[in-house]
Amino acid sequence: MTAMQLDASTFAADMLDGFTAANPQYVKAVDGGVIRSTVIPDGQAALVIGGGSGHYPAFAGLVGPGLAAGAVCGNIFASPSASQICRVARAVHRGGGVLLGYGNYAGDVLHFGLAREQLRASGIDARTIAVTDDIASAPADQLHKRRGIAGDLTVFKVAGAAAEAGYSLDAVEQVARRANHRTRSLGVAFSGCTLPGADRPLFSVPDGMMAVGMGIHGEPGISELPLPTPDELAKVLVHALLNDRPENAGERVVVLLNGLGTVKYDELFVLYSKVRLLLEGEGLTIVEPECGELVTSLDMSGVSLTLLWLDEELESLWAAPAGSPAFRKGAVSAEPDLSSPDEEAAGPAGPPEGSSHTAASVLAVELFEAVDRMLTQAESALGDLDAIAGDGDHGIGMARGARAAAQAARRRAESGSGIGAVTLAAGEAWAEEAGGTSGALWGAAICAVSSTLLRSADLSSATAVQAVDAALAAMQSLGKAEPGDKTMVDSFVPFAVTLRQEMAAGKTLEHAWQAAAAAATSAAAATAELRPNLGRARPLAERSLGHPDPGAVSLAMIASTIGENIKKEDIRG
Amino acid sequence: MTAMQLDASTFAADMLDGFTAANPQYVKAVDGGVIRSTVIPDGQAALVIGGGSGHYPAFAGLVGPGLAAGAVCGNIFASPSASQICRVARAVHRGGGVLLGYGNYAGDVLHFGLAREQLRASGIDARTIAVTDDIASAPADQLHKRRGIAGDLTVFKVAGAAAEAGYSLDAVEQVARRANHRTRSLGVAFSGCTLPGADRPLFSVPDGMMAVGMGIHGEPGISELPLPTPDELAKVLVHALLNDRPENAGERVVVLLNGLGTVKYDELFVLYSKVRLLLEGEGLTIVEPECGELVTSLDMSGVSLTLLWLDEELESLWAAPAGSPAFRKGAVSAEPDLSSPDEEAAGPAGPPEGSSHTAASVLAVELFEAVDRMLTQAESALGDLDAIAGDGDHGIGMARGARAAAQAARRRAESGSGIGAVTLAAGEAWAEEAGGTSGALWGAAICAVSSTLLRSADLSSATAVQAVDAALAAMQSLGKAEPGDKTMVDSFVPFAVTLRQEMAAGKTLEHAWQAAAAAATSAAAATAELRPNLGRARPLAERSLGHPDPGAVSLAMIASTIGENIKKEDIRG
Repeated sequence: MTAMQLDASTFAADMLDGFTAANPQYVKAVDGGVIRSTVIPDGQAALVIGGGSGHYPAFAGLVGPGLAAGAVCGNIFASPSASQICRVARAVHRGGGVLLGYGNYAGDVLHFGLAREQLRASGIDARTIAVTDDIASAPADQLHKRRGIAGDLTVFKVAGAAAEAGYSLDAVEQVARRANHRTRSLGVAFSGCTLPGADRPLFSVPDGMMAVGMGIHGEPGISELPLPTPDELAKVLVHALLNDRPENAGERVVVLLNGLGTVKYDELFVLYSKVRLLLEGEGLTIVEPECGELVTSLDMSGVSLTLLWLDEELESLWAAPAGSPAFRKGAVSAEPDLSSPDEEAAGPAGPPEGSSHTAASVLAVELFEAVDRMLTQAESALGDLDAIAGDGDHGIGMARGARAAAQAARRRAESGSGIGAVTLAAGEAWAEEAGGTSGALWGAAICAVSSTLLRSADLSSATAVQAVDAALAAMQSLGKAEPGDKTMVDSFVPFAVTLRQEMAAGKTLEHAWQAAAAAATSAAAATAELRPNLGRARPLAERSLGHPDPGAVSLAMIASTIGENIKKEDIRG
Repeated sequence: MTAMQLDASTFAADMLDGFTAANPQYVKAVDGGVIRSTVIPDGQAALVIGGGSGHYPAFAGLVGPGLAAGAVCGNIFASPSASQICRVARAVHRGGGVLLGYGNYAGDVLHFGLAREQLRASGIDARTIAVTDDIASAPADQLHKRRGIAGDLTVFKVAGAAAEAGYSLDAVEQVARRANHRTRSLGVAFSGCTLPGADRPLFSVPDGMMAVGMGIHGEPGISELPLPTPDELAKVLVHALLNDRPENAGERVVVLLNGLGTVKYDELFVLYSKVRLLLEGEGLTIVEPECGELVTSLDMSGVSLTLLWLDEELESLWAAPAGSPAFRKGAVSAEPDLSSPDEEAAGPAGPPEGSSHTAASVLAVELFEAVDRMLTQAESALGDLDAIAGDGDHGIGMARGARAAAQAARRRAESGSGIGAVTLAAGEAWAEEAGGTSGALWGAAICAVSSTLLRSADLSSATAVQAVDAALAAMQSLGKAEPGDKTMVDSFVPFAVTLRQEMAAGKTLEHAWQAAAAAATSAAAATAELRPNLGRARPLAERSLGHPDPGAVSLAMIASTIGENIKKEDIRG
């Protein structure tokens, strides 16, 4: 449930404002997230962590000496954008390079990967580590497909301690990878979480039941069991993790018993007492455990158990001192950083005017506004569709992206820019604000459209076809999805193909677009028969059977909305 | 909601076991609670805090250098017993005396007060400080009637820092009293909390509303407002606290924004951003604030705001380093205490045989078992009655006490003891296990009965009358309640008076007892027309009108149960 009437448009900013004000000894705000308010020594490798909000203390609560140098804070459950990541990374870079750490989700992989390339292009050595501790999300022979959940903490702690100890970026990356490989988690949920401002949970668990293997974004579990006693629950978690030991596991383990939101502390301690007995009964030695709220999922009622299988180096890094708003160990000392932050170069200034089609730029604004209205209406339906086998944020992300795009487009058009510049502003705003995988993909697609427009001497139906092809190419290049993978590519390809065919057959843009939109809609519906193929656990893939892909659906809806509006405008080639 | 199927009989013990296992660097378990696992310097005044469980991090999470030396852990929402408190206090006493700190609730006041006397009687200088920060629970001219809520933390932190700094017990007590006087809190709730194992919340808040001024044991609020925005909520809390400033408040304040259980961290930070602006707008300077879960109420959805109005000494004590499982500030160092704990003398050995009435001791066991069965059945009904204007734990406490009494009575009887010793064992077990005010009162009453029995050469109806009179006297002496205060005294007095009158009129004990039980039942029902008079806020007193007092009701039920069983046994004088 939501405790207050929240304004979604200022929620993330207010949250960071309150968080930094409450923890000034550790953190200060920068554009895109938070960084240490204490001195980061020159030459030190910098760990920058991040992901969506809603997981506190992950990620902003883990910034401080011996842990992260900075955290990039996306909207609730949505990846931050690559430009946010770059801004935070630049603010903490001290010449020793940057390790970007995040959970292994498509949106985060995409944005942090883009940020790594952008940082490298600007001369900063950057690496990435995607945490993959959730044993429920893929089998043991596909570790790279697993999600990151509470094991974020063990991996980040080890990496942060290594950076603090003066390890080179290579060595920090290497030990972080080893910590990730040796960290395994499993979670259960007793009831779902509710997005701020939403009136019902993202998913629910039947009364008297427990979902096993759920994710930390409302992704449903892979099986259900009757509500257990603490003994029974401890056995479920411990046995599954012991059956998923890494090679050369050894006998010393860090144990994290993590509350995901609303489980009472007393209950966590009761459960920990049972977990401890089982692990010690197996001959294992527990090293400096943690029992509390470490990586949450808003107000979800659930717990997860994490084991980090130690070796000597990992143990000393785990045990090293750290100080941060939400995680403290031993005694750290760090001087407040009293320097005023370098103002980052404000990025590229407004793009050059690429065209002077002012009527066209008005049309572009109208199209973005029509898409914004449509997606705002469709937001909850798309969210519901996404919640079947995903994290339920597709509707929110699409609506947020479209709103930002429409606003940016209007501002740019009002300053007299042409359609290319207007579209570029819209694409950048969409990528920045939407978050999530779809946000990055739509941002890239719209920016690709703007490139086509900026290169075109005048507008024609042929330009429209080229722009659509460029958008599809950008999406496929970034997202790596093929037709049949149950993504928006499944409706985008038929759209682009039909548009090209119809235009080649001499149809007007209006007719061709509507035929293409119909093809996209039909293809989106047909995705119900597909299984997703991108980092989803098998049970989730099964669950999605019979339901169309939300990305494919929203693409078809956007295509239809544009079709209706170019018809009204009576645009012809 | 409850996340697991919990066994109430082992919950508290399992919880402490898990808690100490997860935090061995700070705490170790002793009989009755936890104490520091680090060295407490000789001569240092020892702060011992406590109260019911269900408030984590209060109280066990606040044990460590610079904070408490030990914590006494009652059952969920129930005061620990005086003997528990004494055991923990003795385990941390290093010759510098003991300050007992707790929230100002009748049960805690009673048990900690008793413990203070018992410690003094054994030569340990002991003081008490009852925290009274909740401005909703009594007007500003009756500070001593206010409840303790999240202000526990500021008072304990200041006292713990003073002890760590080497203050004398006098000086620790004095500065703790000043901190308490200058600490003011107000809480709100969006939904109620649920006791472990219960199937519905202790109280509920209507949809779309917020209860203002609720307590931390499910005590309902004093007014209701529509669900606010963060701005509106910040105003409600800040304005009420600013209108309740202590004299010479000054302009520097510690701010605690406390989540009571299920409010999301993100929401807390949003609210803190608004609170900060309002306080700074009033010209106040915020010093080292805390925003998080500090004093919880199981899974209640709610927040509280606390201000500690600083002077120079309080500020330096607040800012001093502290290390504990749940509250850490700066860098503390303390050596692990490797000594094996002195085994406490196991208390008085089994009492001398006071009588050899073995058939009578069997009867006593049967009576305790009958009361146990009855109270177990009545547990939830008594809890519901108590929840109307209290903390809802009366049923649980009475059932737990009766069960412990019956078990102890049977054990003692099986070892061949007479009725006096059997009853003494039952009374001690009831006081130890029941918790709460009623637990202490019933324990004292049963022990008074045993004294009468132990002094009696043989059993007679006259002995029964004397025993009842002794029990009533013990209850009134300990509880200070008068007839008309809406307590169990209101049914106990008519019971005792009627029993004496009927016996004087020549009736059999059986008849007299039944007449007395009928009088108690009638008097219990009549308490519905009374208002409570013991430390309750006026709105709560109004709320209880029309509902009988749960203590008076349970007393009448126990009297009736005993009446039915002595009838069956055909006991006559």
